[in-house]
Amino acid sequence: MNYHSMSADQLRDTQADLKKRYDELAALGLKLDLTRGKPAPEQLDLSNALLSLPGDEYRDGKGTDTRNYGGLNGLPELREIFGELLAVDPANLIAFGNSSLELMHDLTVFGLLHGTADSDEPWGRQKIKFLCPAPGYDRHFAITESFGIEMIPVPMLPDGPDVRLCAELVANDPSIKGLWAVPTYSNPTGVTFSEEVTRGLLEMPAAPDFRIYWDNAYAVHTLVEAPPTPLRVLEMAAEAGHPNRVYVLGSTSKITFAGGGVSFFGSSDENLAWFSKYLGFKTIGPDKVNQLRHLKFFGDADGVRAHMARHREILAPKFKLVLDILEDRLAESKVASWSEPEGGYFISLDVVDGAARRTIELAKQAGIALTGAGSAFPYKTDPHDRNIRLAPTFPNTDDLRAAMDGVATCVLLASAETLLAERS
Amino acid sequence: MNYHSMSADQLRDTQADLKKRYDELAALGLKLDLTRGKPAPEQLDLSNALLSLPGDEYRDGKGTDTRNYGGLNGLPELREIFGELLAVDPANLIAFGNSSLELMHDLTVFGLLHGTADSDEPWGRQKIKFLCPAPGYDRHFAITESFGIEMIPVPMLPDGPDVRLCAELVANDPSIKGLWAVPTYSNPTGVTFSEEVTRGLLEMPAAPDFRIYWDNAYAVHTLVEAPPTPLRVLEMAAEAGHPNRVYVLGSTSKITFAGGGVSFFGSSDENLAWFSKYLGFKTIGPDKVNQLRHLKFFGDADGVRAHMARHREILAPKFKLVLDILEDRLAESKVASWSEPEGGYFISLDVVDGAARRTIELAKQAGIALTGAGSAFPYKTDPHDRNIRLAPTFPNTDDLRAAMDGVATCVLLASAETLLAERS
Repeated sequence: MNYHSMSADQLRDTQADLKKRYDELAALGLKLDLTRGKPAPEQLDLSNALLSLPGDEYRDGKGTDTRNYGGLNGLPELREIFGELLAVDPANLIAFGNSSLELMHDLTVFGLLHGTADSDEPWGRQKIKFLCPAPGYDRHFAITESFGIEMIPVPMLPDGPDVRLCAELVANDPSIKGLWAVPTYSNPTGVTFSEEVTRGLLEMPAAPDFRIYWDNAYAVHTLVEAPPTPLRVLEMAAEAGHPNRVYVLGSTSKITFAGGGVSFFGSSDENLAWFSKYLGFKTIGPDKVNQLRHLKFFGDADGVRAHMARHREILAPKFKLVLDILEDRLAESKVASWSEPEGGYFISLDVVDGAARRTIELAKQAGIALTGAGSAFPYKTDPHDRNIRLAPTFPNTDDLRAAMDGVATCVLLASAETLLAERS
Repeated sequence: MNYHSMSADQLRDTQADLKKRYDELAALGLKLDLTRGKPAPEQLDLSNALLSLPGDEYRDGKGTDTRNYGGLNGLPELREIFGELLAVDPANLIAFGNSSLELMHDLTVFGLLHGTADSDEPWGRQKIKFLCPAPGYDRHFAITESFGIEMIPVPMLPDGPDVRLCAELVANDPSIKGLWAVPTYSNPTGVTFSEEVTRGLLEMPAAPDFRIYWDNAYAVHTLVEAPPTPLRVLEMAAEAGHPNRVYVLGSTSKITFAGGGVSFFGSSDENLAWFSKYLGFKTIGPDKVNQLRHLKFFGDADGVRAHMARHREILAPKFKLVLDILEDRLAESKVASWSEPEGGYFISLDVVDGAARRTIELAKQAGIALTGAGSAFPYKTDPHDRNIRLAPTFPNTDDLRAAMDGVATCVLLASAETLLAERS
């Protein structure tokens, strides 16, 4: 029954029933974790061939000895593969180390200390701001927060961030220098940016050193037949008259080994020259042996696509399980709504306003760890206290079922409590 | 004959003879490179087992699945091995990515943007300075120069930097925040810091956020029976009352694969907490699979030592060849002196004042690339224009012989020119 239509007495009875069910849950002594977007062991197994690659061969197709120093841009053949998948000309794509987060951090650090390709004045000498479509990726927001960059939340709509609001904000405030974006199967909403929204973000008048961090972390991580065709965002930016606006990021962290993969950075010639200049002070180059390992493992872009289809076989049933439980346990009560993503690593669950923190607390006390309340928002502040990020990938099916059943109980109990409190 | 004792006529004749010899050299059309401290292919071959490691196993001895996310500090067992070799308690040593240069860069960036464990005021909001023992490592100096940190050269003496001068400088100037150091087989001089000099650097009164970047890049890279016993510099710093003064750095770049290795950072508890806090914004963790690969390859610290003995068998004859040619071709003329290192990757060659740049230019025109003039000095400025860094590791013996014979000719010709110019 719809909790919102219940009388206070009905709600109290419901709450009492739920409390009993919750106590039974808590008595199970579960120890389950839905916090982070980690691949499951079976997903990692798909890439076990990497554990004995590259084998006898240590040269890439160009004859480069990958074991030695040199080559700041990474192996050209690997850049070709991921250039195709990220819709970036390989000449404008760098293959780097094991972490695209590190690249985003460095891009920000270089901006703070040196300015950008379009500004000599370091960001660190100004009060600057970033637009933060929310709910969004907590580690993005943590970077900007760590540097004292002011974060402005922007609502995430079904086709991407609210681009009219973004345009209005940047038009009136040249201190806005960045926008965080996960354009495909966004973390945590699963939203994929439409071409129209993207064009709006690229065309809108803004500070010359305004940058979109186009973190295409889930470009090929589909739960359906095929991922959306990636937008050629660098070319679109150039057409829009802002060739330096976009930093494209990607990695194989959730394709091969999380933490043992290869990251990518794509941008305009000018941005790449700017970045390489400063990158060259920091490192002699990336781990080319690991890049060769990946090159041999994939062969070509179709090799990546075939590999991702195997991931999908593991992940799609887990997402379906979560969605089925949500539907089964929560639909009738009308106290929650949730995303039904076609890819990515998360399901975004919205509960009644004011009940998210309590839900997470109840779950924790019952041994089910959920991502901290508000973590998908700048400053970890969910203005409505309603969003919960679910990460269904890591647990096995039994654990996932137990955890989600528990979460559903917590959602219902927290919602009943919250609705009752509102009426008193 | 000693060029300094020659008459002007004798010098002119000598110059003319050398010019002829140089023209013959130039006519050979050589294409040789002594610029960088790169391992030779045969050295890299010593680690080829890594190319198919870790094999079937992906867990470390603690049961950690190295393929997944997690563990900012790196694998404990690998930290134990390199803790022993770097004389750092493994609990105070982090195993990280493929580049210790990157760690040094990050340590500086975090200081600039956040301050240190001993100061809230970011270095970037002050005019700060670093002491730069010179000749030193060009990539160290490039980091400080890139951030506009003022570099103060300090003479490198046979037992380390001029510690009395260092003490005097830091005592009178709290804006001096750092000192670059390569304590074992220093780049390029081959100098190993004595315990006395080290103690002086640790004890001297300085700003609370003064840091020594103890880049022990060549801790085990010996050309003789065994490397010097590493100083337990973190414990010495604590005894000296400055527990947070030292950042210990190291890597396997010149042990296994250059660029495909593992880096290390050791410091006090406080410094590590400070560093990890900011590192955690940048990355989820290092490539643990590569760490496991190294762990399996070495087994223990003795495994590293045995491996370095194999490097020595390749390198010692190359260093001997260079020293023999220098002795044979240059000793009599008294226009040059050079280091006779017991380890590391370089020979430091001093020519008559004012002749280094010309020597390097002559060599370049004869197809022999040497490290740029002045590169071992802050701002690439060798005050006496006399130092040349020789990197004998990469070329094969024939190339090395040809290159060094050519270099000797260039040294003699440039010196004769310089001495003649002085007399006119």
